[in-house]
Amino acid sequence: MPEISARSRSAPSSPIRRLYPLAREAKRKGKHVYHLNIGQPDIPTPQSYLSGVRQADIDVLSYAPSPGLEVALEALAGYYGRWNIPLHEEELLVTTGGSEAITFALNIACDPGDRVLIPEPFYPNYRGYAQLTNVEVTPITTEREDGFHLPSSQDIERLIDRRSRALLFSHPGNPTGVVYSEAELERLVELALRHDLFIIADEVYREFVYEGTHRSLMSFPEAADRVILVDSISKRFSACGARIGVFASKNKQVMQEANKCATIRLSAPTFGQLGLASFLADPHYAEVIEGMIGEYRHRRAVLCDALESVPGITFRRPEGAFYIMIGLPVTDAEDFVGWMLTDFPGEETVMLAPGEGFYATPGKGCDEARMAYVLQEQNLLSAVAALEHGLELYNATQKTAANT
Amino acid sequence: MPEISARSRSAPSSPIRRLYPLAREAKRKGKHVYHLNIGQPDIPTPQSYLSGVRQADIDVLSYAPSPGLEVALEALAGYYGRWNIPLHEEELLVTTGGSEAITFALNIACDPGDRVLIPEPFYPNYRGYAQLTNVEVTPITTEREDGFHLPSSQDIERLIDRRSRALLFSHPGNPTGVVYSEAELERLVELALRHDLFIIADEVYREFVYEGTHRSLMSFPEAADRVILVDSISKRFSACGARIGVFASKNKQVMQEANKCATIRLSAPTFGQLGLASFLADPHYAEVIEGMIGEYRHRRAVLCDALESVPGITFRRPEGAFYIMIGLPVTDAEDFVGWMLTDFPGEETVMLAPGEGFYATPGKGCDEARMAYVLQEQNLLSAVAALEHGLELYNATQKTAANT
Repeated sequence: MPEISARSRSAPSSPIRRLYPLAREAKRKGKHVYHLNIGQPDIPTPQSYLSGVRQADIDVLSYAPSPGLEVALEALAGYYGRWNIPLHEEELLVTTGGSEAITFALNIACDPGDRVLIPEPFYPNYRGYAQLTNVEVTPITTEREDGFHLPSSQDIERLIDRRSRALLFSHPGNPTGVVYSEAELERLVELALRHDLFIIADEVYREFVYEGTHRSLMSFPEAADRVILVDSISKRFSACGARIGVFASKNKQVMQEANKCATIRLSAPTFGQLGLASFLADPHYAEVIEGMIGEYRHRRAVLCDALESVPGITFRRPEGAFYIMIGLPVTDAEDFVGWMLTDFPGEETVMLAPGEGFYATPGKGCDEARMAYVLQEQNLLSAVAALEHGLELYNATQKTAANT
Repeated sequence: MPEISARSRSAPSSPIRRLYPLAREAKRKGKHVYHLNIGQPDIPTPQSYLSGVRQADIDVLSYAPSPGLEVALEALAGYYGRWNIPLHEEELLVTTGGSEAITFALNIACDPGDRVLIPEPFYPNYRGYAQLTNVEVTPITTEREDGFHLPSSQDIERLIDRRSRALLFSHPGNPTGVVYSEAELERLVELALRHDLFIIADEVYREFVYEGTHRSLMSFPEAADRVILVDSISKRFSACGARIGVFASKNKQVMQEANKCATIRLSAPTFGQLGLASFLADPHYAEVIEGMIGEYRHRRAVLCDALESVPGITFRRPEGAFYIMIGLPVTDAEDFVGWMLTDFPGEETVMLAPGEGFYATPGKGCDEARMAYVLQEQNLLSAVAALEHGLELYNATQKTAANT
């Protein structure tokens, strides 16, 4: 057979994919598994989103215009306006999820062999998009002790070389929940200006802020020509399956290139766009969103309070998103996560996302795991109880093994 | 501002995009424009497709599994089975349109700088996917006089070099309507085997065959390890806006890589997959498809008969798809297509797709245009009448201009 390309072979296969068969096997044996490993919200999709799809008056389900349906672009411009992010329709593109928006951004900013700087730990799929577009990732390491806030400008600057083309980060952060301070954002903008970098700002968790305030990268006029906003309705509208994201920029040339990318792939899914327009026109929109954020705020408190009482677990309370990256009293988090699925004797167990997959630096994150608080209070408490019990047993087993 | 990447800058901006403003302006002036330039069918989307979406029982619109919803994969396996193309579910992936399937295929088969051979004229977006994946296109030129059938194996072989990794073609062909003979397909397979190439077979027009029979590239057991089937429901289910395609291969390693690509972009749109499963389970499915193909068969006859009486237009009756690539008695088809929108005095005019955009070889296709027979009989006849009248006037104007 012909040889598979190097870029495909080297694309990462996530550790989570190795763990899923173990979770399936645990369930087959009758065990209940609390899935805190994925960012799949359990919040119902808003009724007005779904009715926008169900009541669509469609005779021929034709291609939507490549930049997006007019109703969707209008609705999005209105949405950003409410956030004081003034974006005209021609500065916006509806994409097939945030995933596609990031791929467009990397294609536009980078040629093969170019580099993108990403604070680590980061959303593991960033590495996938980079690998498939032949872009190298330069990690900017951040630390759990600092709540994953950014290192000094000098530390970041040391990582920039002549192939560096862009900064990419999610803000609020996945998996860290970090919300950057005003000063941090200013430093990033300053660095981008000094080194002529694009800023690819993934703000899909914009609404999910529990401490401090979120400032959009779009609000820095001095960086207007270099900011590419990546967005998605997946989490905020609990509509992951719709595959609707956004690519936005105030830079006309960037938008021209993005429109070329959009034309090549024809259009984003029509149904998802109709739902978006319908929900954004819902008079109860703000109420629905506030209710959802209130729920996550509550879960964050519940989860953090519970975790604080577990011996050996270390973390700083995340400021946003719905993730928390915790330190575990183990040396190999992936092994422990697997053990919880295969060996933990309880009737209920928990699945976490091992930390290593969120880092580009080898060896980092071995004692960490990400939890997504996408389950209701009682389930979160049961999951933490299983985790605490599991850690005790696992560490006892490890000691026994070491002594034999 | 930072520099835009070379790959993005060099990605083609289609001539059609330059012509659309002219069409809009013509319509603003009250002119009716028959759009034969795009492959957007006018056939209503099947009711059972739409009801599968409308009646979906969804509480949380969560990510579909990356390879596709179980119901969609099952339905697809059944569909291919009816075509004697036995494909197991794990040999299939639901993609976001055929576009995404082609991108996956190019990523898997080629590294930057590698080459893909494509018979020209070809679907212009192939060039876009190639450019964005940094793959070079080697055109295999085919001729209108030959009905765009393939040149000799020796002629093709001369184009293959050490960077050649794959053959890519749509079959039945867009824009040519060509359906390759058994012998042609055997030659392609033989070439692929001899030069260790992947075969990326885009069979989205499988049903649209009016002369001869269509043989899937999947039916060559000797090439099972190198064939990647690209498919889409856009045209055959008149559901372009659903964004549902298929990537299929019998090669386990290829499927493993494709699954990595699928995981990275998370999932294909849920609604479109539900519609697909619903329509494929419709007891009237075969009837609906036959009715549609019958309609295209009729339109093909109407259009070809009408074109035969237009002086100076040359073509061979296409065997499949719903396109025809015609020779025009002009030296600059793009100029003529533009003129039909800006200067043609009739109340009704027609928009064609200029031929040049379908070729990679500079200068080819200047006197050609593609017509898509996606309108009803009477509209096709009116469009051809406008075309005939336009050619007369345009050529008279050109002569006058040349004489002054």
